Amino acid sequence: MRLKTSLSVLALLAISGVPASAETPDRAAIAETVANQRDTTIKALRDWIALPTIAAEKMNTPAGAEYMRQLALDAGFQKAEIIPTDGVPGVFATLDAGAKTTLGIYFMYDVKQFDPSEWNSPPLEGAIVEREGEGKALVGRGAVNQKGPEMAFLAALKAIQASGRKLPVNLVLVAEGEEEVASTNFPQVVAAPQVREALSKTIGVFIPAAAQSKDGSANITLGAKGAIEFQLVVGGETSDRYPKTDIHSSNHARIESPAWRLVKALDTLAADDGHTPAIDGWFENVKPLTQRQKDLIAEGAKRNPEEDAKKLLGVGRWIDDEPYVTSLERLVSQPTVNIQGLIAGYTGPGGKTVLPGRAEAKLEFRLVPAMTKDEAVSKLKAHLAKRGFDDVQVTVSGGYGPNETDEDSTLIRAQKTLFERTGIPYSITPRNAGSWPGVIFNGAPLNLPASQFGLGRGGGAHAPNEWFLIESSDPKVYGLDQATMAYVDYLYVVAEEAKKGKK
Amino acid sequence: MRLKTSLSVLALLAISGVPASAETPDRAAIAETVANQRDTTIKALRDWIALPTIAAEKMNTPAGAEYMRQLALDAGFQKAEIIPTDGVPGVFATLDAGAKTTLGIYFMYDVKQFDPSEWNSPPLEGAIVEREGEGKALVGRGAVNQKGPEMAFLAALKAIQASGRKLPVNLVLVAEGEEEVASTNFPQVVAAPQVREALSKTIGVFIPAAAQSKDGSANITLGAKGAIEFQLVVGGETSDRYPKTDIHSSNHARIESPAWRLVKALDTLAADDGHTPAIDGWFENVKPLTQRQKDLIAEGAKRNPEEDAKKLLGVGRWIDDEPYVTSLERLVSQPTVNIQGLIAGYTGPGGKTVLPGRAEAKLEFRLVPAMTKDEAVSKLKAHLAKRGFDDVQVTVSGGYGPNETDEDSTLIRAQKTLFERTGIPYSITPRNAGSWPGVIFNGAPLNLPASQFGLGRGGGAHAPNEWFLIESSDPKVYGLDQATMAYVDYLYVVAEEAKKGKK
Repeated sequence: MRLKTSLSVLALLAISGVPASAETPDRAAIAETVANQRDTTIKALRDWIALPTIAAEKMNTPAGAEYMRQLALDAGFQKAEIIPTDGVPGVFATLDAGAKTTLGIYFMYDVKQFDPSEWNSPPLEGAIVEREGEGKALVGRGAVNQKGPEMAFLAALKAIQASGRKLPVNLVLVAEGEEEVASTNFPQVVAAPQVREALSKTIGVFIPAAAQSKDGSANITLGAKGAIEFQLVVGGETSDRYPKTDIHSSNHARIESPAWRLVKALDTLAADDGHTPAIDGWFENVKPLTQRQKDLIAEGAKRNPEEDAKKLLGVGRWIDDEPYVTSLERLVSQPTVNIQGLIAGYTGPGGKTVLPGRAEAKLEFRLVPAMTKDEAVSKLKAHLAKRGFDDVQVTVSGGYGPNETDEDSTLIRAQKTLFERTGIPYSITPRNAGSWPGVIFNGAPLNLPASQFGLGRGGGAHAPNEWFLIESSDPKVYGLDQATMAYVDYLYVVAEEAKKGKK
Repeated sequence: MRLKTSLSVLALLAISGVPASAETPDRAAIAETVANQRDTTIKALRDWIALPTIAAEKMNTPAGAEYMRQLALDAGFQKAEIIPTDGVPGVFATLDAGAKTTLGIYFMYDVKQFDPSEWNSPPLEGAIVEREGEGKALVGRGAVNQKGPEMAFLAALKAIQASGRKLPVNLVLVAEGEEEVASTNFPQVVAAPQVREALSKTIGVFIPAAAQSKDGSANITLGAKGAIEFQLVVGGETSDRYPKTDIHSSNHARIESPAWRLVKALDTLAADDGHTPAIDGWFENVKPLTQRQKDLIAEGAKRNPEEDAKKLLGVGRWIDDEPYVTSLERLVSQPTVNIQGLIAGYTGPGGKTVLPGRAEAKLEFRLVPAMTKDEAVSKLKAHLAKRGFDDVQVTVSGGYGPNETDEDSTLIRAQKTLFERTGIPYSITPRNAGSWPGVIFNGAPLNLPASQFGLGRGGGAHAPNEWFLIESSDPKVYGLDQATMAYVDYLYVVAEEAKKGKK
């Protein structure tokens, strides 16, 4: 199947029309404040990076929440409180500017694990280094994911207020310290009555991000797949049919193998093609792509050459040798059942004559609208139970459903308006194949628009030498000050777009 | 299926009839020599243990062969030569005693890997320690598997000669240094013209072993399953359908997964019951158990209570909840396809959002007569090819077919005669579920009887604190001197039985 490319898509528009300053009162004064406070902002970002919260390692979990609360108060939120959960606490803060419109903000204050030996500069130091062809970048764990963009957003709030103005919108901030471990307990934060009440009054929620490409273009994302991680375990711990430890392999002649049992259970979860999920009822609630989504995908394909994508991913072919645009439609539209890892018995070089006492598969679902986490987990369990796999233990370690936000929501309209006014070329991605917990706002009962927004640039999330651009050598790409001003402008555009009605 | 127990089986006979000394001339003098040379024998065993040959680590491979050659010369072999192979060299030695009968001896001079931190005394020292309820034991890597029993056999040769007698049989010794890595190159040693020629004149080949139980009973084994180890690998290295490294798991929506592909290939190798091999034609050459074999199994079951076996193996049930005797018949008769290990993608705690770039299963066949290694490997490859798994790489890392020796061969008759004369209770195991490369002698073109023989006792093969009994605290169990004398007696009984005709 090849798709015709629609000529009507909005992607890659680069209208350099009315400058944003026309909409942002006292813009020059605010910009001057931003420049004046730059050193303070960089120091604040470095201090934050020096206190990494890593939920998987229980590192700085209460400390990180308290730090987050103080950052909110310092940025002008009048109220900020810790919301305890069964895991790492969240933070809830409000800034009442007496405005008509209230905007929700989502922060993550945790970061991914890191190994200092893999870094060129200490990961908690925030060294400023020259980055070939980009400019000056701050290097540290969390630099782009997500402390850099979040600090730029806080700097925007401070600059508006420091220049003697009230914010054009009221703010509700919710922050979590478990984003990197699939936001397991974050729904508890949002379910707290005062938090839910406050969020329900917002026009939507966004997370600050540094999403500018090397050519200066930006991207609007209208949603993301959900992700659920789970493990299947079979062995002596789940049934007395299997040995409790690895034993001599000759015994397989009379003793069942947890490894074969796992293979048999796994085999039922995917069709023989090795990729189509075969869990009973899996596709029941899957919404097909709309024509608009297909058009956006086809347009996006033009900006990202097929050979580059294949090279980056290290493959020669897509599933079923499909053409590129079809592979991109799959990426956006297909709910997957992926094996993240397999481990059983002997895993060293060559062989070893053992019958494993335990076999584990690590899997993950990626969900699309209108699937839900509960639905996927229930279907998996029913599927295995129906086939008698009661000795296969299912452990869901985390996850959430998909999210999807209307192109015509205030949150998205404001992004388009801002990009068009400031001449930022942009594209629209109908749905990220990767995941973020937007569903916590996007799903019931809040049903809010949820998005990522931000200019500026960075990279190396989850990798060594993570970076965030401070001073850009290319005027089309934003450094820290310009990224901060983009948040200033965005708040004014949101206020303006909100007057037009639709959430 | 339950089996009736035959009353005619020979197992557990404990006829303390004519003492072996009636058959061994000058037995008292030889026994005195054995006692006198005890300290020398222990020192020789320690020196040998101090020079471990480990093929997997390429440790002492030429040195171990040369040491083995010297041991043979020291024990009275007139000729001893190194036989080079593509891997670790073998040793071939002959001792011409001018006798009518020639006996083949198989030695392994290599040992299993060891981790000194897991041992209570240094694994290369050969410390003598008191073993609760057993006596004084020598502790070291190779103590029982197989240097202790082999040294006792060499001591027997020396004692006969030191007492001024010629051996009652001529000897052909073949030794290898790759037993612990599945005897990959040993067939090359046996195929050397001078070795084949010499072996073809023997009445059979045995490997010295310390196989006495704690109650003093012995066991005669009439064969062993074969074992073949192999690995299945799928990934970027086998097809450009798969990524070359682990990549972000969202890509599984458009990129094939080596882990699913491996699951699909594995699934075809076993029936849905999780244990019956499903490789095309797998059972074609499998010989069913004879009534005699079934009788021996049923008799053996009586000596090894079911609950003890289950406890030792850490299981509550046998395959298909079968009764004990049936499970033992399975152990002896079923050719298995076992998964030794699985490894793919992320294997740490919890999950990680990756699509693996590689998936590997480590497997092993156990073969029964009349299957062969070549047959099993060919059938596996044809099975996978027929189903289009040309992207699944098969690597056979080693192995050999099953062996089986007639109860009426001289080699086995001599064991029965010896046990009966000396009043050693014994049982007969129709086939070991574990494996040893007896097929190298047992199969074409030599077609020789092949067996293990030896009294004395030890344990901990392949484990820390491996031991070999030197001085037994129980008169029914043999220490080093008595085990040595058992080899002396065995050589005379072999000569005597050989006169009766049948090989």
